[in-house]
Amino acid sequence: MKLSLPGGGFVRLDAAMADDLSVINSARVSFAKESLEMTDADIGLIKFLMRERHGTPFEHNSFRFHVKCPLFVAREWFRHRIGSFNEFSARYSEVPNEFYPPARSEMRTQVGKPGSYSFEPLQDAEAAKAVESIEKAYAYAYYVYVGLLEQGVAKEQARMVLPVGMFTQFYWTVNARSLMNFLSLRTHETAQYDIRVYADAVLELAAPKMPVTFSAWEEFGRHVP
Amino acid sequence: MKLSLPGGGFVRLDAAMADDLSVINSARVSFAKESLEMTDADIGLIKFLMRERHGTPFEHNSFRFHVKCPLFVAREWFRHRIGSFNEFSARYSEVPNEFYPPARSEMRTQVGKPGSYSFEPLQDAEAAKAVESIEKAYAYAYYVYVGLLEQGVAKEQARMVLPVGMFTQFYWTVNARSLMNFLSLRTHETAQYDIRVYADAVLELAAPKMPVTFSAWEEFGRHVP
Amino acid sequence: MKLSLPGGGFVRLDAAMADDLSVINSARVSFAKESLEMTDADIGLIKFLMRERHGTPFEHNSFRFHVKCPLFVAREWFRHRIGSFNEFSARYSEVPNEFYPPARSEMRTQVGKPGSYSFEPLQDAEAAKAVESIEKAYAYAYYVYVGLLEQGVAKEQARMVLPVGMFTQFYWTVNARSLMNFLSLRTHETAQYDIRVYADAVLELAAPKMPVTFSAWEEFGRHVP
Amino acid sequence: MKLSLPGGGFVRLDAAMADDLSVINSARVSFAKESLEMTDADIGLIKFLMRERHGTPFEHNSFRFHVKCPLFVAREWFRHRIGSFNEFSARYSEVPNEFYPPARSEMRTQVGKPGSYSFEPLQDAEAAKAVESIEKAYAYAYYVYVGLLEQGVAKEQARMVLPVGMFTQFYWTVNARSLMNFLSLRTHETAQYDIRVYADAVLELAAPKMPVTFSAWEEFGRHVP
Repeated sequence: MKLSLPGGGFVRLDAAMADDLSVINSARVSFAKESLEMTDADIGLIKFLMRERHGTPFEHNSFRFHVKCPLFVAREWFRHRIGSFNEFSARYSEVPNEFYPPARSEMRTQVGKPGSYSFEPLQDAEAAKAVESIEKAYAYAYYVYVGLLEQGVAKEQARMVLPVGMFTQFYWTVNARSLMNFLSLRTHETAQYDIRVYADAVLELAAPKMPVTFSAWEEFGRHVP
Repeated sequence: MKLSLPGGGFVRLDAAMADDLSVINSARVSFAKESLEMTDADIGLIKFLMRERHGTPFEHNSFRFHVKCPLFVAREWFRHRIGSFNEFSARYSEVPNEFYPPARSEMRTQVGKPGSYSFEPLQDAEAAKAVESIEKAYAYAYYVYVGLLEQGVAKEQARMVLPVGMFTQFYWTVNARSLMNFLSLRTHETAQYDIRVYADAVLELAAPKMPVTFSAWEEFGRHVP
Repeated sequence: MKLSLPGGGFVRLDAAMADDLSVINSARVSFAKESLEMTDADIGLIKFLMRERHGTPFEHNSFRFHVKCPLFVAREWFRHRIGSFNEFSARYSEVPNEFYPPARSEMRTQVGKPGSYSFEPLQDAEAAKAVESIEKAYAYAYYVYVGLLEQGVAKEQARMVLPVGMFTQFYWTVNARSLMNFLSLRTHETAQYDIRVYADAVLELAAPKMPVTFSAWEEFGRHVP
Repeated sequence: MKLSLPGGGFVRLDAAMADDLSVINSARVSFAKESLEMTDADIGLIKFLMRERHGTPFEHNSFRFHVKCPLFVAREWFRHRIGSFNEFSARYSEVPNEFYPPARSEMRTQVGKPGSYSFEPLQDAEAAKAVESIEKAYAYAYYVYVGLLEQGVAKEQARMVLPVGMFTQFYWTVNARSLMNFLSLRTHETAQYDIRVYADAVLELAAPKMPVTFSAWEEFGRHVP
């Protein structure tokens, strides 16, 4: 299943080995017990594990995502070390002419200081001008990139001129505990808007696979267990 | 699927999200390419990745095992940090009367020095005597354990007398790259026999899920990519 | 520096590369700033990072501990995957006659159910009897162990009879963030008493190296950032 | 100690807790042995551990580096998950006008196919033209960036136009085992030249701290143990 994101990005759930029962059975192995289907007691156990931050039972599952997003979003994503990544390589392949222009309505200005600032929308005319500047910068960078390639410059060098607003794509495989850590940080209101829309899409795709788990995560404040 | 091991242990593959195609697609994302089914070129690519030790494409999959084994085997197993474990707890549950007695034919004596020793079988009469001693030690330890529990001693304290030959059980979730690292070390002739039989069982269950991958692993000397 | 623990165990801080300034400088690199010594603003920054759970700046340091403790304590310790361990091996070396007998005054009985039980001390006579049983179990196990070795049984097999109350020793190298995670769980009142005394010793040795960090950790409820 | 790199980058070893003796003592704890200074037997042991790929004893140490490098170099660096990073943030700070122009003599063209290609230098006139194009692309991107900031656009959005050739800086803390993995890959002739010079600098700074270890690493083919 694939969710489209602004400017041509997407999040696709490529495969999953994930259900709430795996949380129950890996937790109940402490008592040499096993459940064949979820009971009310099992739902209570998942809430208990989440609230008390017993995190390991949430690791016995796996989600594989295929993501296309701007490079500056990917850079924040890749800081999450518990998980696996393989990404498009601009050393090996020619980068397509695909860049992320923020929507005019999303152009914003920063108010306040680091650690406690907020954002306000830019006025329409200013926003239009800003988006136009960004698109011109993308266009010029790509023009130079193509020129370098035509000159015979190695792809791994020519890429140096490409901006972090370019699209990249990658596979990401992760378990629910690490995923909830990612989501706690990246769906939070302090996260940059442009990664937040991706994190929201990831949540929308993952949550139905483990409904009790993600509902407990919601209930206890979206903290990572 | 469940494989029985000596003395009452087992390895069961509880779930898997694993196929060779996931290796191909996470590798080919470098070139923004995708395969829908394995081709000869794809088989060649897996061999190339294995030989050149490009390991990350082997991480986009997941195996969940349920294992019952002696505690001294579990201790070596848990040293493998890239993966997830949940284990039976002798703090919370009464330990059943289940211990691992080596088969008489497996009793061995050590020849040579650490780093370069080998093993030879004990003579029959000696082996019989040794197994008998081990079983008596297990029986006495369990007798004391039960007595302590009857006295009202907390389970978490009473367990101190139980030997590392007791059986434990756990869930283990791991990707193929980390699994191949485990198998490289634990199926090796220098690994202790008693964990080697478990590693062989793990391999027997995992390999059919990713036949090209495990056959390439075999071909290039069972090194971890 | 070395702290002695009940029954012959110890925790020794073998080396450390750790100060509060490393937290500051790795955090301030976000702004391309650097501090040469701690200021009041720096103290405030550490509190902010701790409270808001910005954990990565607490990772740029390292503590190397040498620990001797009962094996059942070591088993809980080794579950902490972010860190490095090397341990005494009963495959390679003869295990010395060193076992952990709980103090009589520490013998306890369990009241309540898993997840919400508590402990009460055993009555004196009962405690004395329990300790005596435990020591007899240790003595018999060691007697059988030595007998097996004399018979020529390989060390890796003879060890199977040894109880989890035996002492082991290991080196553990860990950064402050992972250390605080260990301490949050293992100094907590729900942790088993016998590991809690070790965790307290670890804290006593580590805290003076990063006084502002550990005092902020204390102030905000001993949560891991 | 700080090594300067082309175009204004550097690698500085900020702190280290590292010596060969830590390898010896964490290995010898298997036998409950300890060394106070390196002997010939200890040198032999390090070679043995390296050759047989017993890697864990090489983890009980720590190196903290401060690095300034182009962003596309940092991106490859950050793929190494066993270690800690904190980086300059273009969300919080204004990016300085610092970009990496390859030296004219380093401009190259790619010959052959992915997996088995090689590089040849560009002819002088072509190289000069390419470097000029790159510098113009940098200048235009920075001009747009500054314009966006002057318009009031949030730093986190304005950065989208900046190229991956811009300089960034970060702290990296890592143990010798993970460091040798980084160096095996990034000093290899198949690594991109522009990260290879950084990896060489890292090696030059780290090796003197653990001379026996790094000389054994060299001797056995720069494989990670």
